[in-house]
Amino acid sequence: MAAMELRRWPRKNDAESIRARQEVVGQRIDDGEVLWDDLASWEKANEALTGVAVIPVSVIGPLLISLGEYELREPAGELAETGRRSDDVYVPLAHTEGGLSASLYRGARAVAESGGFTTYLLEDRITRASCFVCSSAGDALVLARWVEDELEPIRAWLSESDDPSIAKRAKLREVKTHVVGPMCHVLWRWTTGDAVGANMMTRNAYVVNMGYVLEHAPVRIERSILEANMGGDKKPSFEYFQSGHGKTVVAEATLSDDAVRRVLRTTIDDLLELAWAGTHGAVASGMQSVAFTPASAVAAIFAATGQDLGMIGTSSMAHGVGRRVDSGLNVSIRLPGLEVATVGGGTTLPYARSWLALMGCAGGGKVHRFAQIVAAAALALEISASAAMATAGSQNFFRAHHELGGLR
Amino acid sequence: MAAMELRRWPRKNDAESIRARQEVVGQRIDDGEVLWDDLASWEKANEALTGVAVIPVSVIGPLLISLGEYELREPAGELAETGRRSDDVYVPLAHTEGGLSASLYRGARAVAESGGFTTYLLEDRITRASCFVCSSAGDALVLARWVEDELEPIRAWLSESDDPSIAKRAKLREVKTHVVGPMCHVLWRWTTGDAVGANMMTRNAYVVNMGYVLEHAPVRIERSILEANMGGDKKPSFEYFQSGHGKTVVAEATLSDDAVRRVLRTTIDDLLELAWAGTHGAVASGMQSVAFTPASAVAAIFAATGQDLGMIGTSSMAHGVGRRVDSGLNVSIRLPGLEVATVGGGTTLPYARSWLALMGCAGGGKVHRFAQIVAAAALALEISASAAMATAGSQNFFRAHHELGGLR
Amino acid sequence: MAAMELRRWPRKNDAESIRARQEVVGQRIDDGEVLWDDLASWEKANEALTGVAVIPVSVIGPLLISLGEYELREPAGELAETGRRSDDVYVPLAHTEGGLSASLYRGARAVAESGGFTTYLLEDRITRASCFVCSSAGDALVLARWVEDELEPIRAWLSESDDPSIAKRAKLREVKTHVVGPMCHVLWRWTTGDAVGANMMTRNAYVVNMGYVLEHAPVRIERSILEANMGGDKKPSFEYFQSGHGKTVVAEATLSDDAVRRVLRTTIDDLLELAWAGTHGAVASGMQSVAFTPASAVAAIFAATGQDLGMIGTSSMAHGVGRRVDSGLNVSIRLPGLEVATVGGGTTLPYARSWLALMGCAGGGKVHRFAQIVAAAALALEISASAAMATAGSQNFFRAHHELGGLR
Amino acid sequence: MAAMELRRWPRKNDAESIRARQEVVGQRIDDGEVLWDDLASWEKANEALTGVAVIPVSVIGPLLISLGEYELREPAGELAETGRRSDDVYVPLAHTEGGLSASLYRGARAVAESGGFTTYLLEDRITRASCFVCSSAGDALVLARWVEDELEPIRAWLSESDDPSIAKRAKLREVKTHVVGPMCHVLWRWTTGDAVGANMMTRNAYVVNMGYVLEHAPVRIERSILEANMGGDKKPSFEYFQSGHGKTVVAEATLSDDAVRRVLRTTIDDLLELAWAGTHGAVASGMQSVAFTPASAVAAIFAATGQDLGMIGTSSMAHGVGRRVDSGLNVSIRLPGLEVATVGGGTTLPYARSWLALMGCAGGGKVHRFAQIVAAAALALEISASAAMATAGSQNFFRAHHELGGLR
Repeated sequence: MAAMELRRWPRKNDAESIRARQEVVGQRIDDGEVLWDDLASWEKANEALTGVAVIPVSVIGPLLISLGEYELREPAGELAETGRRSDDVYVPLAHTEGGLSASLYRGARAVAESGGFTTYLLEDRITRASCFVCSSAGDALVLARWVEDELEPIRAWLSESDDPSIAKRAKLREVKTHVVGPMCHVLWRWTTGDAVGANMMTRNAYVVNMGYVLEHAPVRIERSILEANMGGDKKPSFEYFQSGHGKTVVAEATLSDDAVRRVLRTTIDDLLELAWAGTHGAVASGMQSVAFTPASAVAAIFAATGQDLGMIGTSSMAHGVGRRVDSGLNVSIRLPGLEVATVGGGTTLPYARSWLALMGCAGGGKVHRFAQIVAAAALALEISASAAMATAGSQNFFRAHHELGGLR
Repeated sequence: MAAMELRRWPRKNDAESIRARQEVVGQRIDDGEVLWDDLASWEKANEALTGVAVIPVSVIGPLLISLGEYELREPAGELAETGRRSDDVYVPLAHTEGGLSASLYRGARAVAESGGFTTYLLEDRITRASCFVCSSAGDALVLARWVEDELEPIRAWLSESDDPSIAKRAKLREVKTHVVGPMCHVLWRWTTGDAVGANMMTRNAYVVNMGYVLEHAPVRIERSILEANMGGDKKPSFEYFQSGHGKTVVAEATLSDDAVRRVLRTTIDDLLELAWAGTHGAVASGMQSVAFTPASAVAAIFAATGQDLGMIGTSSMAHGVGRRVDSGLNVSIRLPGLEVATVGGGTTLPYARSWLALMGCAGGGKVHRFAQIVAAAALALEISASAAMATAGSQNFFRAHHELGGLR
Repeated sequence: MAAMELRRWPRKNDAESIRARQEVVGQRIDDGEVLWDDLASWEKANEALTGVAVIPVSVIGPLLISLGEYELREPAGELAETGRRSDDVYVPLAHTEGGLSASLYRGARAVAESGGFTTYLLEDRITRASCFVCSSAGDALVLARWVEDELEPIRAWLSESDDPSIAKRAKLREVKTHVVGPMCHVLWRWTTGDAVGANMMTRNAYVVNMGYVLEHAPVRIERSILEANMGGDKKPSFEYFQSGHGKTVVAEATLSDDAVRRVLRTTIDDLLELAWAGTHGAVASGMQSVAFTPASAVAAIFAATGQDLGMIGTSSMAHGVGRRVDSGLNVSIRLPGLEVATVGGGTTLPYARSWLALMGCAGGGKVHRFAQIVAAAALALEISASAAMATAGSQNFFRAHHELGGLR
Repeated sequence: MAAMELRRWPRKNDAESIRARQEVVGQRIDDGEVLWDDLASWEKANEALTGVAVIPVSVIGPLLISLGEYELREPAGELAETGRRSDDVYVPLAHTEGGLSASLYRGARAVAESGGFTTYLLEDRITRASCFVCSSAGDALVLARWVEDELEPIRAWLSESDDPSIAKRAKLREVKTHVVGPMCHVLWRWTTGDAVGANMMTRNAYVVNMGYVLEHAPVRIERSILEANMGGDKKPSFEYFQSGHGKTVVAEATLSDDAVRRVLRTTIDDLLELAWAGTHGAVASGMQSVAFTPASAVAAIFAATGQDLGMIGTSSMAHGVGRRVDSGLNVSIRLPGLEVATVGGGTTLPYARSWLALMGCAGGGKVHRFAQIVAAAALALEISASAAMATAGSQNFFRAHHELGGLR
C-alpha cells in the first residue's frame, strides 16, 4: 500500500499538485502556518513544493573590513589582487542559537577597536572529480599523462563547441590526475563566475568526458564516472582542506591588549593557552579543522542568503591560528573550501536576495566580496567564543550558555 | 567611526531596537520583504533580531520505514531496542537545489518497491570534551585515573545538587580520558532526552569541572577548559566518526533487481562498480566519509525543522556500504554523529514545529524516531544519486543537473 | 622459464638448500661477505635463509630514567602502577644515519642536567580486528550486542579449552564492536605478556571466531575474516593512535633554562615557536603524528633488539607536546602503539638478545621497562633535533646535516 | 652522578673510544658476540660506534618483473618512461617473522604463473618543507606569491653559486606554498639522483632560505624554519600519501583464475570479498593506507640494503586495489612515498652493498629500478597474505601463524 501511495505522490509544482500535497500535510499538522497560498516565487527552486520554512534573522554590524579586490587572469585563471577597499558591512545571521549573534557582535567589536579585519582571497576554483576505469594501472597511467597533456586542446574544444549543454561561464582552468589501481581519477578545475557552479561544471565535465576523453583516449576506458569522491563534494576531504574548493579565503585581525581585556574580558596569554590546548585536542581527536565554531557563522549566513546548506560542512573546514606579535594578538582563519554564490541557486529568490543586498553582495561581480565577508564574520565569532572559553574554567562560555541559551 | 557605530548597534529585541535595526537594513535593500512587522515569535531565538529568511519546502512521501523503538536503561544509559513499528512518513525538505527532491523521491520509491527501509539507533550520547591542564604528564595521568574512578560519585553529586544551573535532564553516563602532555582531556558523555543538549551539558560540565573536579582533584590543576577540541563540536572528527555523537543511526534497505532496473534505471553491477570507485576515491582524497551526498538530505530536513544548521557538517559524517545479497543489493548508511532534537532550540518555533509534526516528531519522546527518519531520507537520496551516477558515463546524473538544476 | 625457476627455488633451511641458494646469490655479488657459513642460529627465524645483514650499533648512555613498574590486574587486565625506580640505561642504536647518535646523546644530556626522564605506561593491549559479514546491518547489530555480552563466557571457554592451538599466555581482556553495513567488526583485545603477541592472538582469535562465535551466534554469519583493517596492523590508524596498540607510553622531562641554553644552544622561546609552527604544519599536511623524528629512534632500537621492523611505522605514531612551566620547559612524547617484546620473535636470537641485555630488558617481565626506555630515547632525540631546528634559520640542523651526515 | 657519567661518555670512533664503550657494554651482557673487534667499515656511519646487529636474510626469487626505465627531463624534472625490460630478480629479506618469506614466495609464484609483475615509476621528488613566519597572514601571502614567482631565479642562483655546502646533485624542481596564519610554508621539491637526498636537500634548502629568501623577500620574515611538518619527514602524512615523496611507484599483476585456485588456494570472489571488507575496515578505523601488510616487505628489504629504517613507516604508505577483469583479478599497489637509495647513506657499506648487488641495484643509475623491485615484492606479499586471509574464516592465515610463526 505504501508503495502505491508513494507512486501516486504528485511531484509537479502546478497549482493542483501543490494543493494536493498541502491537503495531505494539512491533515497531519495543527495549523497551516507553513502552507502558504502563494508559492509562485519558488516554483522552480525545488520539486514537490509544498510550503515554507521561516528562520529568524539577526543583523550585526557594521563590521569594519579591508576587502581585497581580485580578478582572474585569462586563460589560466590565476588570481590577482588588483586593489583593496575598506567597508562597513552588516551581516545577516539566520539561526536560533541563543548567544551566537551577541557573541559575533562582541568579536567584531574587539576587532573594530583594534583596527578592523583584513581579508584575502587565495584561490577560486571548483572541481569535478571524474574517474575513468581502465583495465590496468598501466593503461590508467597512459591515460593520466595524456589527459594532462590535452588540457589546452580540451579548453579550445570547449570554447568552440556549440553543444547547448555546455555552460560557457564555467571555464576549465587546470587538471590534476591521480592513478590508483586501474582508476584514473581526473580533477577538472573550473572557475564559474559568481555562481558556485556545481551544475555548470557537472554539465561541462560530462561533455568533456564523453565527447573528448572517451572519443580520443589512447587506451580503452571501461567505465567513465562523472564524480567518484576524489574531490570532496559536500563531504570534507583533505584534498580540498589543502588545495581548496570554491573560494579559499583568509580573514585576519590583530587584537590589541586593550581590546582583549576590555571587550573580550580575557587576556592574550589566556587566549594562547586555549589555542594551544585546543590545537592539541584537535590532533588527538582526529579533527581536521583547528578552530572553534566556524560552522555556526557559516551556517547562519548561508541560511540567510540562499546558499546551498548541504555545503555548510565543507565550507566550514577551517584552520585558525593565533600568534603574539608586537602590537597584540594576530588571529586569523583560513577557510579553504567556501562554496558561495551571489548569482544562481537560491541566491536570487525572495528574502535571500535581500540579505545579500544588505551586504552589497547581490548579483554579478560580488562573489569575491561575499566570500571575504563570510570569513570575517566567522573570525569575529571565533574570537569571541574563544575568549569566553579562555576565561577561568571557561566561566564566560558557561555563562553565555546559561543566560542566552534559553531555548536549548 | 565604524567602531563607534558598531558600539552603538542595538542588540536587544524590544520593539524600538528591532525598528532601529530594520531602518538601517531598509536603507540598504530594495524592498522590505525580509523585515516583517511581527517578529514576536522569535524574540528569544537570537539577539539583534531583525527579519526573516524564508526557504521553500518540498514534501516527499510516504517513505515506508520500519522504525526501532528504544529506551535508555538506568543508570548507565545503555540503549535497548524495545520494539519496532512500520510507519509511513512524509519528509519535509527545505532547500533550493533543483533535482534533490525528485531524486530523493525516486530513491524512496525504489526502496518502497523493495520492501521498505529498516532503521536502527545504535548510540545516544552527547559529549562535552573538557581539558584540565596540569604541570606535568605525570600529574595529568593521576588526574585521569582519578576522574575515571569518580564517575559514580560525580553522578550522585550531580543528582543531589540543588545548584540551579544544573540541567537535571542531562544525565552523565560515561567518562573517557585522554592524556597527552600535561593535558588531561576528559570526555563527559551525557544523554539529554529529546534535546540536542549542547546547552544543558555545557552547564553541567562546567559545574562538575569547577565544583567537583577542581575541588577534589588529587593533583594541582593549572587551567580548566570546558571544551578543547578532543571531541568534535561542529567540526567533523574521527573521534565522533567512530564512537558517535548525538544519535548514531543506521538505515538500510535491500533493493530488488527489478526496482534497480525499473525505478533507478541502472543495474546492481553498475552500482557496485560505482561504490568501488567512489570508496577508493574517498581514500585517495582523504575523505573521512564514504558516501555520496548525505549532507544534502540532512541539511534540507534540518532547515525545515529548526535544527542547529551549524551541526550539518558533523551530522552528515557518513559511512555508506553496498553489498550484493541473495535478494538484491543491500545498501545502508551509518550516520555516527546525528545531532537532532524534537524539543528545545529552534524546534518549537513556528514553522519548524509544524514540519516536525508532519513526521510525527514534535515534542518529547520523539527524538529517536526523528533520527531514524533522517537516516532513511539520507539513504533514499544516496540510492537515487548513486544510480544516476552509475549509468554509462553518469549520463543520468548529468541529465538531472541539466534539466532540473535550472536555478544553479 | 622464470615461473619454472621460481617454482624450483628451495625454501627449506637444511644445509643443502641454504648452500643452493648461496650459490645463486654468490654468482651475482662481488664477494661473499653476506653468505656466512654458519646460519644455524637463525634457521627457525625465516624460510629460505641465505645470509645475513649487519648494521653498525652505537651506544649512548647512561640515560637517567625514572621508570614505572606495572602489573595487570586479573581478570580484566587493568594496568596498575605498583612502584617506580630510577635507573641508568645505555641505549643501543642500530643505524647508519650520521648525526642521529650524537643528537640523541645531546638530548639525553640536556635532560640529565635537568633532572632526568620520567616515563609511564598507559595501556597494554594488542588487538586482532576480526570481521563477521552478515546478510544485513540488522543482523550485524544483533551479532555485535551478542558478542559484547558474551565476553565473560568466551574468556571462560578459552581458559578451559584444551585446543592445542590456543596460546594460554594471550589473555582476552576486552572486546569492542563496530557495525557498518552488514559487517560486524570485532576488536578482540588481548594481553600477551612480554611478547608482542601477534602470533598468539591470531591463533586465539581464530579459535574464538570459529569455535565460539560461528557456533553460537544468534544470526547467520556469511563470512568470517580474522583481520579486516578495523585495527591497524602495521599500518598507522586513528583507531590505534587514540586507543592504543601494544604499549601506550609517555616519556617526559622538564628542561631547565640553563640546560636549554648551554647544552641545546637555543632558548625555550625558540623551542616553543618551533613547536607552534610544527604543530600547525602537521595539521596543514594531514600528518597524524605531531612530532619531529620519533621513527629514527624507534627504528634504531628496534633494529638492534630483534623487534619486528615492519612495526616501526605504527610504533612511531607520536604526539609530542611542549609547554612552559615554572621550572622550565615541560616536554613529553606519547607513543600510543609501541609494539615491543622482550621474548619471542627475533628478541632471543644472537645479537638482539645482547642488546636487550645491555638495557636490562632481556627475557620475561621486562617488556614494560623496555617500552619506557624506547620512549625516553625517542624523547631525547626529539629534544635535540628540535633544538637544532629552533636555532636561527635552523642553522644547527643544517650544520648537523652538513658535518655529520657525510654518508648521505 | 648520572649526569656526570653521561657527560663523560665517549662519542668518537677512534680505537680507544670504541674500546671504552665496549668495556662498559661488556660488563652488562653475557657474551661479547656484538662487540666485534673490527668496526672500521662503519666508523663514518654513526657516532659512538660500539658493535653490530645481525639480522638473518632470506632470499626469494626470481621474481619476474617488467620494469620501466625512466629519465628526468631538464630543467623541470618531468619523468619520462623511455623503455621497459623484463627481468628476473632475487629479493633479499632481512627479518625474523616466521612465514613472511614463504608467503612472499607464494605470491610471487602466483604472479609468475599469471604472466609476471609490471611496475611503474610515477614521481621522483624529495621535499624539504620550510616555513617562514611573518608578522601577518597578509605578509605571508605576499611572500608565498613571490617565492612561487622566484623559482627560476632561485634555480639559476643555486646552480651558479660556489657555496661549498650546496649539493649540486640535488636539483630544485618545483615549489609549493601554503599559507596559514602568519606562516608561509614552502615545500621545496628536489630530485637527488640515486640518493634519498635528505641530507643534500637539507643543505640546499638552508642555503636558499638564508641566502636567497631572507635576503630578497619583499616582506619582513620573523623566523625561518628549515622543516616544519608541512611535508611528512618520517611521519606519514596525507600530503605525501597523495602527492608523493621519494619515489611514487605502482606494481601490478593480473592473477589468473587458475593461479588463484592452485597456488593461492582461494578464489577471486573470496579475494574481492576480503578487499571489500578490508577497505571499509580501513575507513572505519581511520587508516590512511588501504593494504594488508606492505610494511613487512618494505622493512625486510630496507634492513638488508642499508636504507634508512626510520623511513619504513612513510615508505609503507600504500593504496592497494583489486578488480576483476576479463583475464582474472587485476591487483596493484601504489607506494607514494618510497624513500630508497642505491648510493649514499648505508647503501655502500658492507653487507648492504652486496644485497643491493644481488638485485642489480648497487650504485648510480639504479634507484628507479630498485624502487620498482620493492613495489613488486610488496605486492607479492600482499597477494599471498590476502589469499591466506580470504580462505574460510581466514583458516590459511591462522595456519601460517600456527605452523611458521614458531619464534613469536
